[in-house]
Amino acid sequence: MSRSIDLNCDLGESYGPWRMGHDEEVMEFITSANVACGFHAGDPLTMRATVELARRAGVAVGAHPGLPDRLGFGRRAMAVSAAETYAMTLYQIGALAAVARSVGVELAHVKPHGALYAMAAADPMLAEAVAAATRAAGAELVLVGPPFSALERAAEAAGVPFAAEVFADRTYLADGSLTPRQRPDAFVHDPEEAAARLVEIVTAGTVRAVSGEVVRLRADTVCLHGDNPAAVAFARAVRAALLQAGLEVRPLARR
Amino acid sequence: MSRSIDLNCDLGESYGPWRMGHDEEVMEFITSANVACGFHAGDPLTMRATVELARRAGVAVGAHPGLPDRLGFGRRAMAVSAAETYAMTLYQIGALAAVARSVGVELAHVKPHGALYAMAAADPMLAEAVAAATRAAGAELVLVGPPFSALERAAEAAGVPFAAEVFADRTYLADGSLTPRQRPDAFVHDPEEAAARLVEIVTAGTVRAVSGEVVRLRADTVCLHGDNPAAVAFARAVRAALLQAGLEVRPLARR
Amino acid sequence: MSRSIDLNCDLGESYGPWRMGHDEEVMEFITSANVACGFHAGDPLTMRATVELARRAGVAVGAHPGLPDRLGFGRRAMAVSAAETYAMTLYQIGALAAVARSVGVELAHVKPHGALYAMAAADPMLAEAVAAATRAAGAELVLVGPPFSALERAAEAAGVPFAAEVFADRTYLADGSLTPRQRPDAFVHDPEEAAARLVEIVTAGTVRAVSGEVVRLRADTVCLHGDNPAAVAFARAVRAALLQAGLEVRPLARR
Amino acid sequence: MSRSIDLNCDLGESYGPWRMGHDEEVMEFITSANVACGFHAGDPLTMRATVELARRAGVAVGAHPGLPDRLGFGRRAMAVSAAETYAMTLYQIGALAAVARSVGVELAHVKPHGALYAMAAADPMLAEAVAAATRAAGAELVLVGPPFSALERAAEAAGVPFAAEVFADRTYLADGSLTPRQRPDAFVHDPEEAAARLVEIVTAGTVRAVSGEVVRLRADTVCLHGDNPAAVAFARAVRAALLQAGLEVRPLARR
Repeated sequence: MSRSIDLNCDLGESYGPWRMGHDEEVMEFITSANVACGFHAGDPLTMRATVELARRAGVAVGAHPGLPDRLGFGRRAMAVSAAETYAMTLYQIGALAAVARSVGVELAHVKPHGALYAMAAADPMLAEAVAAATRAAGAELVLVGPPFSALERAAEAAGVPFAAEVFADRTYLADGSLTPRQRPDAFVHDPEEAAARLVEIVTAGTVRAVSGEVVRLRADTVCLHGDNPAAVAFARAVRAALLQAGLEVRPLARR
Repeated sequence: MSRSIDLNCDLGESYGPWRMGHDEEVMEFITSANVACGFHAGDPLTMRATVELARRAGVAVGAHPGLPDRLGFGRRAMAVSAAETYAMTLYQIGALAAVARSVGVELAHVKPHGALYAMAAADPMLAEAVAAATRAAGAELVLVGPPFSALERAAEAAGVPFAAEVFADRTYLADGSLTPRQRPDAFVHDPEEAAARLVEIVTAGTVRAVSGEVVRLRADTVCLHGDNPAAVAFARAVRAALLQAGLEVRPLARR
Repeated sequence: MSRSIDLNCDLGESYGPWRMGHDEEVMEFITSANVACGFHAGDPLTMRATVELARRAGVAVGAHPGLPDRLGFGRRAMAVSAAETYAMTLYQIGALAAVARSVGVELAHVKPHGALYAMAAADPMLAEAVAAATRAAGAELVLVGPPFSALERAAEAAGVPFAAEVFADRTYLADGSLTPRQRPDAFVHDPEEAAARLVEIVTAGTVRAVSGEVVRLRADTVCLHGDNPAAVAFARAVRAALLQAGLEVRPLARR
Repeated sequence: MSRSIDLNCDLGESYGPWRMGHDEEVMEFITSANVACGFHAGDPLTMRATVELARRAGVAVGAHPGLPDRLGFGRRAMAVSAAETYAMTLYQIGALAAVARSVGVELAHVKPHGALYAMAAADPMLAEAVAAATRAAGAELVLVGPPFSALERAAEAAGVPFAAEVFADRTYLADGSLTPRQRPDAFVHDPEEAAARLVEIVTAGTVRAVSGEVVRLRADTVCLHGDNPAAVAFARAVRAALLQAGLEVRPLARR
């Protein structure tokens, strides 16, 4: 079992005059930045500034393509076809790749955003479209998604390197799925506890479900949040606890 | 003086359910396609279909980035900054480059669209931004613009290969500028006459202005239109006349 | 049973430089125009021109609000909340109402477009939101939707006048639902046959399903299409056949 | 000369998930809210929440229509035609009017936003378009703009009630125009001084220019800002000082 983990965060989610997230603070403790590509959030200038920030912080950069729904922040499921999914994913990765290259950065990974993530995790056709777009955008790009998902299977089938993602602040049900957000036990609030759970996931390949069962789980990368000061503080504390527990924190390797 | 010329046309200007242009017919007689990149027109699926069409026809593909004004089709001048211009141009080229690469095509050129073309032709700051974005997107990309323009000077300063463009159906004033569209003598309607004028521009480096003076003019590429059946017929006839006059018709060379 | 029917058509679906539909021709034979309001199609100038066209033709004007998805033409289902649906529907009706009033026209009806129509027909929460928005925009507005749908029930509950809509060119299953588009027997191609079916629906309140059963059906208005010349010709022929069969063709009455 | 003044502020400038402004705090001390209408900022749900907030605070509500440029927040000048300006202004007022009426509020005024404000203040054709749209949207609506501007003349010509606006935190040149923002003396930082200047403008119809001359100036309403805590504090202090100086603070009267 591995002793290392990547820490990722969704960044570059400002839009024009509207600010979102605490990108500068977050860059200090993550190893991979998922940069919004202008569909659900982000714009060309924001993308450039975010990649530049990541470069200076030594943080790996990946594309965070989303649905064409800025008003809904890419969080509203939409009945997009596989062909639309493929083309819009490729478009967004390409746009960010060019912007990133202009500041000396090559993209390392692709992580779909919001509803696109959820849809591609569950629907084999959309998963295949996202995997194919990732592959078309660069053979070395790592696709990030939930372990044991349609996205993982599609990546494997397409020969795309895959990184399994878990959430630092979320608990799991006995069937390995995330505890629904509306349940009171859906979230982990204590960073020490969150880190302990992550260490178990990374080193033992298991997690204790809310119902007590030990469930198989795998993680190459952990999703942290930087939307508000409390989230930033939590994320920072989780990282410190992971290091103290002897885990190595490092970016996903491009193939 | 050269004996060859490139024939370019703006294509891929449909958007979602809305069709524009006669792309399939036009592909038969042009050598370079300027493909809209999703800002003023085009969308990921349309871009892909257009590049695929060009590939099959053996037509070179370039990016046709525009202002973020779909409603106005990128034709309304907008007070964009140089930084915005740089970032939005790079974004659009990158998006199309990825889509094109996925069907086996490398971009050959960049031609700004509509108001962005006019603004960058006249404003050295915006011209520099467009040239820098073109260079950042690929050292081999040829930038297309009016001869003797700020865009040409910016390309030269940035070490970006430049192709001078003229319009098959337009006349010129004694100062070398296009005759304004509202004047009755702004347009050339006879394809034979248009071709004769183009041959003079290409082989002698001059054109006769509407006022009779012989004016210096240069052309590496000619802009044709495919918006309506009459434009398609005109363009087809111009090409035939150019060939008959002994000119070679071939795409711009990537550096 | 009534001997009269309204003939409606979706119009004003151009966007900026992109044309769609044969609005001028269609205006000659319909009695109600559903005008796109700028979300899935249409824009302020197009809306104004379309209402003006309807006014001159003596055609009643209604709002045709859609999902905020121009690229997908409002045809892709989206997970919008009831609150979002209410607010976006009201916004669109209000925008069109102001534009219409400026050319001397008061809106007569509201018909949701595409995926919003389908979603509101099936989902009581969204139906209630659309009915409430219609009522808030004007007590006299008639809401148009499928008979026996959630939209009809929501209109009734909200005290909003409702008009049941059927499609001139579609067949029905034994359960009263539309035959799915992919089935070969989904469409009626002969305008005489279409008119005969409509006469039965209007006068007898029944239709023969594709499987042979006689099914209850009700219609206050018939949806015609004007996207292409064939659709226009079909629609024109259906109208003529309805008149010949003795049906009166007239707009929905505002309450 | 009047002894009363209206205090207005641009509000409802959030968009989807992005927050902007301190609307709740600002509502406590203004008398008129200019609500963004979804083009440069705002969206249907934000518009509704903002009008509701204003209603509860007893603040008059007006439309704040902008250019169709969300990315640039309506601050980038755009070459829009008079027809486009008319239609887009009317569209936005109508959309907000319907949303406002649904929470029991009738619009009181219209103030163009950003570049549209500046363009309509200077260009008689655009001014006329904005005035005509305001009039078409409701005979009782007051149009807000700079005193002595093209907008004022257009309002007068169209029979639209007009309110002259000044800025609490800005100084003026000897010709009556605003001191350009890049000059160090462009801004008033002390709320007492700002209030004293406003009292002079309201009661004497003059202001002292930065060069010392006494300049004619008129104000029916004062623009305050609520973008950040410092702006909110400044605005609150200006209001207190105006009241202390004996000015009455009240909304613009609808005709």
